[in-house]
Amino acid sequence: MSTLTYQNLTETRAWKSLCSVARPSSIAVDPRAVPERFVPVGAGLQFNYAARGSSPEVVEALAALAEEQQCIDKYRALAAGAVMNTGESRMVLHHLTRGKLVEEMEAAAAPLDAFYREQHRRVAEFAGRVHRGEIIGSTGKPFDTVVQIGIGGSDLGPRAIYLGLKNCVARAGGVKMRAHFISNVDPDDAAELLTQIDPERTLFILVSKSGTTQETLANETFILEAMAAAGVPGLDPHRHMIAVTSQTSPLASSANYLDSFFIDDYIGGRYSSTSAVGSTILTLAFGPEVVAEFLRGAHEADRAALERDPRKNAALLDALLGVWERNVLGYPATAVLPYSQALSRFPAHLQQLDMESNGKSVNRDGGPLDYPTGPIIFGEPGTNGQHSFYQLLHQGTDIVPLQFIGFHQSQLDRDVTIDGSTSQTKLNANLAAQIVAFSHGKQDANPNKSFAGGRPSSVIVGDRLTPAALGALLAHFENKVMFQGFLWNINSFDQEGVQLGKVLAKQLLSGAADGALGAYAELLGV
Amino acid sequence: MSTLTYQNLTETRAWKSLCSVARPSSIAVDPRAVPERFVPVGAGLQFNYAARGSSPEVVEALAALAEEQQCIDKYRALAAGAVMNTGESRMVLHHLTRGKLVEEMEAAAAPLDAFYREQHRRVAEFAGRVHRGEIIGSTGKPFDTVVQIGIGGSDLGPRAIYLGLKNCVARAGGVKMRAHFISNVDPDDAAELLTQIDPERTLFILVSKSGTTQETLANETFILEAMAAAGVPGLDPHRHMIAVTSQTSPLASSANYLDSFFIDDYIGGRYSSTSAVGSTILTLAFGPEVVAEFLRGAHEADRAALERDPRKNAALLDALLGVWERNVLGYPATAVLPYSQALSRFPAHLQQLDMESNGKSVNRDGGPLDYPTGPIIFGEPGTNGQHSFYQLLHQGTDIVPLQFIGFHQSQLDRDVTIDGSTSQTKLNANLAAQIVAFSHGKQDANPNKSFAGGRPSSVIVGDRLTPAALGALLAHFENKVMFQGFLWNINSFDQEGVQLGKVLAKQLLSGAADGALGAYAELLGV
Repeated sequence: MSTLTYQNLTETRAWKSLCSVARPSSIAVDPRAVPERFVPVGAGLQFNYAARGSSPEVVEALAALAEEQQCIDKYRALAAGAVMNTGESRMVLHHLTRGKLVEEMEAAAAPLDAFYREQHRRVAEFAGRVHRGEIIGSTGKPFDTVVQIGIGGSDLGPRAIYLGLKNCVARAGGVKMRAHFISNVDPDDAAELLTQIDPERTLFILVSKSGTTQETLANETFILEAMAAAGVPGLDPHRHMIAVTSQTSPLASSANYLDSFFIDDYIGGRYSSTSAVGSTILTLAFGPEVVAEFLRGAHEADRAALERDPRKNAALLDALLGVWERNVLGYPATAVLPYSQALSRFPAHLQQLDMESNGKSVNRDGGPLDYPTGPIIFGEPGTNGQHSFYQLLHQGTDIVPLQFIGFHQSQLDRDVTIDGSTSQTKLNANLAAQIVAFSHGKQDANPNKSFAGGRPSSVIVGDRLTPAALGALLAHFENKVMFQGFLWNINSFDQEGVQLGKVLAKQLLSGAADGALGAYAELLGV
Repeated sequence: MSTLTYQNLTETRAWKSLCSVARPSSIAVDPRAVPERFVPVGAGLQFNYAARGSSPEVVEALAALAEEQQCIDKYRALAAGAVMNTGESRMVLHHLTRGKLVEEMEAAAAPLDAFYREQHRRVAEFAGRVHRGEIIGSTGKPFDTVVQIGIGGSDLGPRAIYLGLKNCVARAGGVKMRAHFISNVDPDDAAELLTQIDPERTLFILVSKSGTTQETLANETFILEAMAAAGVPGLDPHRHMIAVTSQTSPLASSANYLDSFFIDDYIGGRYSSTSAVGSTILTLAFGPEVVAEFLRGAHEADRAALERDPRKNAALLDALLGVWERNVLGYPATAVLPYSQALSRFPAHLQQLDMESNGKSVNRDGGPLDYPTGPIIFGEPGTNGQHSFYQLLHQGTDIVPLQFIGFHQSQLDRDVTIDGSTSQTKLNANLAAQIVAFSHGKQDANPNKSFAGGRPSSVIVGDRLTPAALGALLAHFENKVMFQGFLWNINSFDQEGVQLGKVLAKQLLSGAADGALGAYAELLGV
């Protein structure tokens, strides 16, 4: 392995070359490029970039940048257990939760392979006992519902994946338990949940790595008090609650939980969907085979991302094209547009993943940066978005690069034919049409009906949104974000930007607020 | 009324003055400004802009711009029935669906006041008959569920409002029917709904102004076929479906619907929540009194927006500050951050409202523009967003102005005290803390823990999210968007940017695709 060196994007030789590469004069798609410009993602998905507005020269310059910033070497080092989370002096091991990527691990990392696998195994065993009725509620009724209490990474990823797979698993008759999620400290979130569940048949999962997350502990107390107040004879709330936490947290050794499953400091919240944070609720809801498939898909994408040539590495190429768009072309945002209703909350997860990882203004060593880093990420499923914000995407004054996702087949395989085509065909016809419309545009004598075109997009295409496909999709974006962090020379694995708000909120709640904080407290009735 | 004249933003005298006004050197909040810098929105809400980063000089220059662009005169003209949707040569009358704003109406508009009221009255009468069991399902069972089939404006606004009020109405024991929504042409959307409802007890509302919306008609057929295939003796799907459409649409005269309620061409989809598009499902779900309150709140905000002085007009001031941020300061996006779980889909509605209205590159007459128009809009409820994308908002390389929303009290009034404070207090303490953190920032010896501050926000505060408060909130943002359209000299009421994709999708579905479109069709299995 090469010695790793770290330099800011604009200090590299490759950056200077990149700036002098000619920008393609048109990004209209050459039809012959469509079946050619693609890279496998893993689990049968392909990343197609024919409409992404690159040229062979641009890709070559980007490949040189990837080489100079040692993207693959750094990924290998990260996977082996190097301390890549410089801000918090931690290893970054979420890849290991789905499989080992490199043979030679650092001494500190090596034992954790077995640790993560052991947690998945313990989760599967626990879930099996729940499914077989060996673990039941305190009043003797079997559990049929599971509720995750968590926020941020303990909520968005697991929720997006649950919604992403629910119908696929249901079609195969594999749903074991219904799942719900509560996250917000707004008491209406938990209060509304209580109207939807039968507490005697509900198992709660408290998810907090530190065991100190304000929102999550408040919601736990809310649930415990509500169950105690329900007046059901024999109902013992503590026998309805398990914990997912770190072994060093105050929750880990508490007798208040039926059982506990563990993560550690090397799994960041937004990267924790494939750890016990995600696998616990997913295994309870869908069974261990579905989760194993999901992890297999993620691992396949992780392995594909080890390829050195970005022309054959979808995550790396996606990352590089994103840097081209953000730093050379100056585009401020990226939209994530899955043409699949099951992925309704996947953009919200990617919004956290990307914006919390790369929304940084200093480099990995705390040095200043003179270039933009992570873009704003937003999105909704198509075709819904077409009837909402696509107007701005087509005719607005800013160009927003687009990340489409599509599948040949629906999840539930229940469809209807009208005007000679199924709904699934209409869905994908719309997706094809949008890619071309954004890229080519259309001139019209009426300027209000003209489309400038030149709006780049790529599309990830699969046959069907299966557990393995969703695992690969998730890992693709995680790895894209990681590679962009290497290119920008930032630490994608801490989140110091969330601290100040927490500190001030605590100060206020302890009664120590004056000045502007006190004035706003008064305004808001605190 | 003054004669209306139209000029681009950068052609105004006020623009030149605005560019020369000193930018405030710090936007740190003066505590004394917090109780002073606010404007009533309507229905008890206030718009507080103490942290929005303006100075009296900036506001004065903006007021001159509002005057020169004749914002209030144009609003009055619009409300009176002037043809403000220049692209489609139509009046813009959504304000009239909640009440008359000006006495003297244009001849074409005058009769429509009665028309919109008549539709609300017909909806209320129909809903009353459903609630009293006078209108029942075809197999003799009462309706307890209502499903809206619509997309874009027929989906996002009504859905956001339904979610926004459900708990508030439930607390008063006022929920009459459960509501669901299907929108996406992805067949999994409708197929999943079928697993959640009892068709014998479900009333469907087909919502399409033109009666030709591809997604909506496909979903209608999906539902009709599924009900026919359900094998329930006597189940007649057409006796389970009503329509909301224009009187000239093919649906209006169809015998396939139990009843029909009407809108017209002067109500744009994204502005239709207060027309029959929204009132039908909301009245069925919550009863006419709740809807009357919602409309009353909207009308109150509409009236407040007639005020000529922007220092006393929340919607106009919000619009002006947005133009300052977008055009003078060059910020590309705005985040909408409600600290209320009930508003979980309100940002998605505003995303459509704003981006579809003002994501335009030509002026109202089709002339070119040399300045940015509508920003990217995104958001999620707090405190959830704090654990997601706030990292970028605090420490990212772009500044994103923030629109907070908060309420003193929760909707369900069920809460828990831990560590000496309720969840509702924690929620609002976080909101106060975030406003100050964004504005003031914090220096730290470790650059990775430093916050530059200088990130502007305003907050709309109310006592509780009631029907009237939500009506006022909705109207505030509608009017803000309208005023920004006047300031930018664009037509905020058409959406030609959605057409090209539709045309190409139809072309593809009719088998006439070649070139790039054909290549993508093949890739996507169309």
